[in-house]
This record gives sequence, C-alpha cells and structure tokens, in this order.
Amino acid sequence: MSTQTFQVTGMTCGHCVTAVTEELEAIAGVRDVQIELVPGAASTVTVSSEHDLDRAAVAAAVDEAGYELVG
Amino acid sequence: MSTQTFQVTGMTCGHCVTAVTEELEAIAGVRDVQIELVPGAASTVTVSSEHDLDRAAVAAAVDEAGYELVG
Repeated sequence: MSTQTFQVTGMTCGHCVTAVTEELEAIAGVRDVQIELVPGAASTVTVSSEHDLDRAAVAAAVDEAGYELVG
Repeated sequence: MSTQTFQVTGMTCGHCVTAVTEELEAIAGVRDVQIELVPGAASTVTVSSEHDLDRAAVAAAVDEAGYELVG
C-alpha cells in the first residue's frame, strides 16, 4: 500500500471535493481519497493506493475534475 | 410571464450554480434560471416563470440544494 499527499487549488465546496474524489477513485489501484478542503487556497488531497501513483495520472484526473495540481 | 430576483448565500462555484438551478427548474412553471455567482457573498438568482412564484417554494428549493435564501 502507498499513501501520497497532493495539493490542489480551485476547490471551494463539497461539490468540488466530490468531483475530485470521483476522478481520483477512477485511477486503477486507488483505494481511498481524503480531502481537507481549504477554500481560496490549496486543499490537501491524500490518496491511498495499491502502489505509488504516477504524478501525471493524478494531475490529469485533477484537471479532468476542473482543478489544478500544484504540489 | 414573471421575472423575480432573489439573493442566495453559500454558493461558491459552478457546481453550486448547477445545484441551485436544477432545484429551481423543478418548480412548476419555471422557464429559466440565471445566476450571477458571487462567492463569499450573496449571489443574485433571477427566475423567469409562467406566474409569480411563492417565496416559500423558492426558499425550499434553495434549501434543498444546500444554500440559503436571504433576499
């Protein structure tokens, strides 16, 4: 198992959390997604998965949801 | 036709706009909903309908979406 933490900007509400969570959960191997929402700044996204995720795949999923991976 | 304007707080993003729009469009007689999103303050919601809407019905729809009718 792997747990990775990312920073995502642009998220403002529970709908944003749902959108990002759904896109990340669609990545193969992802077991759990936890998001600490910080409206107006970077939200902390913690992803638990079977193996370390490729950062590009995470960035693509976040972009697909309409937000930006910044860290 | 009737056009009424309301103020709604708690909306922060396009998802919020979609949620409120969908709830208001479900009210009988509603033809169109336009929302000027103002994150962090009151957003202006303009509803066009066949007849004047009962304010309680609008308040209930906004509440169902998870926001508050304030004006």
